[in-house]
Amino acid sequence: MAPPRLTLPALLLGAALLAPAPALAATGAGGPDMQPILLALVLMILGARLGGSAAERFGQPAVLGELAAGIAIGNLGLLGYHGLDGLRDLAAIQVFAQIGVLFLLFSVGLESDLAKMAAVGGSALLVATLGVVAPMLLGLGVSRWFFPAHHPLSHWFVGATLCATRVGITARVLSDLKRTASVEGRIILGAAVIDDVMGLVVLAVVGGLIGAADRGQAFHFGSVVWILAKSLIFLAGALLFGRWLSPRIFALATRLRGEGLLLPFGLAFCFGLAFLAALAGLAPIVGAFAAGLILDERHYRELMSRDRERRDIQELVGPIESFLVPVFFVLMGMHVDLKVFGSPGTLGFAALLTVAAVLGKQACAIGVLELDADRLAVGLGMIPRGEVGLIFASIGATLMIAGERVVDDTVYSAVVAMVAATTLLTPPLLVWRMKGGGRSRRVRALAESAAGAADRERTPRSAGQP
Amino acid sequence: MAPPRLTLPALLLGAALLAPAPALAATGAGGPDMQPILLALVLMILGARLGGSAAERFGQPAVLGELAAGIAIGNLGLLGYHGLDGLRDLAAIQVFAQIGVLFLLFSVGLESDLAKMAAVGGSALLVATLGVVAPMLLGLGVSRWFFPAHHPLSHWFVGATLCATRVGITARVLSDLKRTASVEGRIILGAAVIDDVMGLVVLAVVGGLIGAADRGQAFHFGSVVWILAKSLIFLAGALLFGRWLSPRIFALATRLRGEGLLLPFGLAFCFGLAFLAALAGLAPIVGAFAAGLILDERHYRELMSRDRERRDIQELVGPIESFLVPVFFVLMGMHVDLKVFGSPGTLGFAALLTVAAVLGKQACAIGVLELDADRLAVGLGMIPRGEVGLIFASIGATLMIAGERVVDDTVYSAVVAMVAATTLLTPPLLVWRMKGGGRSRRVRALAESAAGAADRERTPRSAGQP
Repeated sequence: MAPPRLTLPALLLGAALLAPAPALAATGAGGPDMQPILLALVLMILGARLGGSAAERFGQPAVLGELAAGIAIGNLGLLGYHGLDGLRDLAAIQVFAQIGVLFLLFSVGLESDLAKMAAVGGSALLVATLGVVAPMLLGLGVSRWFFPAHHPLSHWFVGATLCATRVGITARVLSDLKRTASVEGRIILGAAVIDDVMGLVVLAVVGGLIGAADRGQAFHFGSVVWILAKSLIFLAGALLFGRWLSPRIFALATRLRGEGLLLPFGLAFCFGLAFLAALAGLAPIVGAFAAGLILDERHYRELMSRDRERRDIQELVGPIESFLVPVFFVLMGMHVDLKVFGSPGTLGFAALLTVAAVLGKQACAIGVLELDADRLAVGLGMIPRGEVGLIFASIGATLMIAGERVVDDTVYSAVVAMVAATTLLTPPLLVWRMKGGGRSRRVRALAESAAGAADRERTPRSAGQP
Repeated sequence: MAPPRLTLPALLLGAALLAPAPALAATGAGGPDMQPILLALVLMILGARLGGSAAERFGQPAVLGELAAGIAIGNLGLLGYHGLDGLRDLAAIQVFAQIGVLFLLFSVGLESDLAKMAAVGGSALLVATLGVVAPMLLGLGVSRWFFPAHHPLSHWFVGATLCATRVGITARVLSDLKRTASVEGRIILGAAVIDDVMGLVVLAVVGGLIGAADRGQAFHFGSVVWILAKSLIFLAGALLFGRWLSPRIFALATRLRGEGLLLPFGLAFCFGLAFLAALAGLAPIVGAFAAGLILDERHYRELMSRDRERRDIQELVGPIESFLVPVFFVLMGMHVDLKVFGSPGTLGFAALLTVAAVLGKQACAIGVLELDADRLAVGLGMIPRGEVGLIFASIGATLMIAGERVVDDTVYSAVVAMVAATTLLTPPLLVWRMKGGGRSRRVRALAESAAGAADRERTPRSAGQP
């Protein structure tokens, strides 16, 4: 059989490239303009799969290829083609990506077991605390050394952008390696949830101090207490009452007429907790993760058997996940601006900030209490910074102190580069470490089975028919 | 077991109602504000399922309940609560709805068989032509009788809003009744695709005439020819080359590393054709429908067996469909403004416009060539007007002629009401007709099996365990 010469990707790319750039903003009045959104979805879905397959060919997790595809799509401007520049800023694509990361965390939560998570709770808390304090102080030091003229609170703000781990990347690598339920995986995921909360508290405190300093007002510690209280109320409330509520919701669903009730009620539970998390001022992914932790097949077994549904929530969510999650990772790649690396000043600051970010999170290794856990793997897994760091930087860019922006263009670009670098570094480092770099696979396998890891192991597939 | 007193829906609604309305626009800078989007998704998903279950309890298709849930959510303002008023205008929700209707049409296309569609091609073309001409002339007459002072071209524009069938509602009812593959179903779906194309040509012609009249310029018939040519090129190209391309795309996918390639390539094919349709100036749903028509399990059987995937594209798309399609129908309901029916003038014009819309499409019955087909069912199935009518109205609201808006507020409200009325009328009428009102089920069953209908029949489920 002759290899196909003309493929849909090539045709679509051709159509996209031939279409004049302004056409992206044309078409009908009334309702959203679907044309650029559809083009973005096609390019992102195909890019994700082609990049993912290429990464897997080199023994890397698919997510790295998805990021690389995003970087390629997002930096076509460097080759002189600007027809796709607007795609990364499409609000709808950003929302798709955010919903995608909710599904990822929901799914990670579904795979996680609350009892096992609680068993590493002490470690997770210590790991998170060390992983917030150490990078923050290092980042503060780097900023003070590089920009001695900046306001002291500006250095604290740069430090704050280094706090929050982006659990998405690590969760995806763990999922690719089928190691989500490993002791290291549980510590990382638990610590990431905790340091997300801590990061938001740090942001509130530093932001509050900056606002007060700029207005010459006294800072109210009451608002810090209030944010802290909301966070704790949400998490405790979700985990305690959610366990009580979930079986009752599905009992209600079982009494309704109609089929196919499991997925809508599961989705509403996930989005509902994500909404409540946002209402409490937390990141919605915290709520989605909590929803996944809470839901258990025991809660909806009766509904499944009445619906003659063989698939559990995780299997039903699977296709939605494989539609939306790659959109998130490709978009993250599209936001990497390669031009930033052209300026030596930004490059130097970005490099030092990245070193601070990587080394700072290695302090996490000290916090691991379990003797059989791989401390280095935990430290590596905590490296990636992401949306939260970017959101912090964008908030900093809007804050003023004594007439100066707290986060100026150079600092902002460096933070984006640091986020990109930590994101790109983590998958290969984590794969190297968790695939047995340093410890024998046998010791690892024993530790795994002792911890009762319930990962679904699929047989590695061979290279396909000739 | 005591019935649950406190449910997630109640809790969420409580949280939403207790939250001050401005909170919907609050939360973090940078990136989209997810809070109102999540609230909208929760309310729409739960509303759709609760409304759908209620409708099924009364023997109606679930879609009617989803629309009713949307009307309830969208008109809470009448009860004095305005906290949710902004949800219907969230751009992200509109995009979710548009992607949902793409999935619906993709799925309808997957269920449809091109050969069977071609077998009713003559009828579909005749039905579509009659269904464009008759309502347009009736609408023009109603507008001229009601508003003799309006510009003659304004009447033509009102007539044009009555042209295009919204296939979504009918497709959904047919799918609920498992009658998508029936001869009536194929004629309706085929005619709807054709009259979408015809409607856009009519819009281009009338819009061009109005623009020319307003500027005092001569109208160029070349642009009509160009739109017509683009439409025909797209449809012929999609159906001819798509059949050739599709097996080659999946052959390429089979040679890639990694698992789970079927869904992404299927989605890219669907979104790709939808994008090309939009590029050609057509509605994206035409492309999604064409993609569904083209894709065939024979094209990707090798990929399925290599991936050890038991589910075909239709089964993989199922969960995404049941997530996004109800969002579309609830949103359609949310755009029904009950206040419009309070003004006698608007109400009278809306009522007459609806009569024109309903009676006009009954002319379609004449175009049905098949002797065994239910002509009335085809006429009823063509009744609903939708997005295209609304888009026409919104374009008309922006067009000026001699200093007057072509579509003023009264006409616009009446068109919206007509769209709502036709949408609400169709499901019960179609269910009444297709569930054997007038013709015995036996005759129908014979006609069905003769037509080789391959609908998956599920056994009706009994009322559930006590």
